[in-house]
Amino acid sequence: MEKLLVFGHKSPDTDSIASSIALACLQTKLGKTAEPRRLGNISKETEFALNHFKIGAPELLTSVSEDDNVILVDHNEPDQSADNIKSAHIYMVVDHHRVNGFETAEPVYYYAEPVGCTCTILYKLFNQNNVTIPADVAGLMLSAIISDTLLFKSPTCTDLDREVAEKLAKISNTDINSYGLAMLKAGTDLSSFSEEELVNLDAKVVTIADKIKAKISQVNTADIDDVMTRKAKLEEAMNKDVESLGLDLDLLLITDIINSNSQAIVLGSHADLVEKSYSVKLENNTAFLEGIVSRKKQVIPVLTSHAE
Amino acid sequence: MEKLLVFGHKSPDTDSIASSIALACLQTKLGKTAEPRRLGNISKETEFALNHFKIGAPELLTSVSEDDNVILVDHNEPDQSADNIKSAHIYMVVDHHRVNGFETAEPVYYYAEPVGCTCTILYKLFNQNNVTIPADVAGLMLSAIISDTLLFKSPTCTDLDREVAEKLAKISNTDINSYGLAMLKAGTDLSSFSEEELVNLDAKVVTIADKIKAKISQVNTADIDDVMTRKAKLEEAMNKDVESLGLDLDLLLITDIINSNSQAIVLGSHADLVEKSYSVKLENNTAFLEGIVSRKKQVIPVLTSHAE
Repeated sequence: MEKLLVFGHKSPDTDSIASSIALACLQTKLGKTAEPRRLGNISKETEFALNHFKIGAPELLTSVSEDDNVILVDHNEPDQSADNIKSAHIYMVVDHHRVNGFETAEPVYYYAEPVGCTCTILYKLFNQNNVTIPADVAGLMLSAIISDTLLFKSPTCTDLDREVAEKLAKISNTDINSYGLAMLKAGTDLSSFSEEELVNLDAKVVTIADKIKAKISQVNTADIDDVMTRKAKLEEAMNKDVESLGLDLDLLLITDIINSNSQAIVLGSHADLVEKSYSVKLENNTAFLEGIVSRKKQVIPVLTSHAE
Repeated sequence: MEKLLVFGHKSPDTDSIASSIALACLQTKLGKTAEPRRLGNISKETEFALNHFKIGAPELLTSVSEDDNVILVDHNEPDQSADNIKSAHIYMVVDHHRVNGFETAEPVYYYAEPVGCTCTILYKLFNQNNVTIPADVAGLMLSAIISDTLLFKSPTCTDLDREVAEKLAKISNTDINSYGLAMLKAGTDLSSFSEEELVNLDAKVVTIADKIKAKISQVNTADIDDVMTRKAKLEEAMNKDVESLGLDLDLLLITDIINSNSQAIVLGSHADLVEKSYSVKLENNTAFLEGIVSRKKQVIPVLTSHAE
């Protein structure tokens, strides 16, 4: 069998990078030829994790063709994947998101669980195949769990995420709390990014209720006010996306990872969907969303149910 | 947690019944309240297997509501599931078909592998959870593998199906060949069925290439000529379905399980898709399809690729 390319979603977060590297590692140990790829720039948080565990970043990939044999991790929606993904041969999917818009002509290996992080599922796959996880890969997988669950504080976090994180911490000899806080903090240094970059650091384009094309972006910070000083230019960047991508809704979550709240900036013709969904009133295109930190658990399903 | 209802596809085959019973058994042993259901009549083949291993048929279910918590086995497409399936809460999917038209608002446990039978995957799940398979359930799971792979002769059969079948044969103390042939033969006694029943014994309605609504039915026989004596009445029953279901294509495969060939009867405005797909010429709405026995592997993907 030819080479398998393993990649996560566009605007990759730490889980998309870590799970690509971890699953390529597992497949290699199972005798396959597999290599990780990334569909975008590495975030500062991910860079911190890669440097800490001395692992190189995967090669950049932009599009695939019918000659490619691919494994999708941490996503399944075609819009979030490599360009031309529908032409490629999909060998496997390992994910923790809802199934949406994914289909193949032939049966495929598809494994999803409603847990906080793809790397939690990959830990089970290593175990099921009796493959030992190398210490550096275990450290990177732990980083992904810390990132996706905001150090176990996100509502997406499950008991299994916590258990697996403890085991990966042991394998990689890592102190979860001190390392985790340092990693999350590295990810909140937004000073070097332009506003165009900020709204694309961790962004997903989804179609809500089959009719509303929405982009939902998220930046993590320890200081919401600090990010809001850049509001005018952030809106400018978002308005450009609304036009170029034909968005009905552009929602930027500025998430306070210490106190677990988000400030939302909302643009587009369907901005009122956010008002309706959270019983808030937008003032100057913004509203405070108390306790909202998870796009997957607290945003997409909530918008979906209010759009129907 | 409230009760989980476990069911396979409409017009259930042996795998849909066996995997419902097996997964309800596993969930119960894991401490959940779970019960199998069936979405249609039990076939003679399935009846033979249930009787042989002294297991009762699941209760009939026709539709579900938003109060139901369900597990889908052996299917994922909403058209093949219980009425109102989109309103129910889907807790889990275990399947061996392509993903098509399945979506949920929230993440869900979804496990599919490209193997010959859902029960092969369930064997792995029993193992992963360290749960012993009761002998009678193992016998029923073995029956499903024999049925879906036509005693390992179907192109959908994988090495894993063979391996698991051997293990289940040991647990259930079953001679695979003699039992398997007897079971498959029991399924070919079509004499007591009306033509309307025959075209619905094992039927799937699928949408091909987003545009062609097709019903693909299959009956197994040891004597194609014998079934073809009923051709006129079979076409009458099929024409009724074309009208009442608004089909663009109605394909009945009469499959010779001894020699692994099928005679096709084809109706509907897109009947020419079958001619194009297999380079055959329909005469009086029928053609012989040499070596074609698997709807999943040799029919749906072939029709799909020729329709695009």
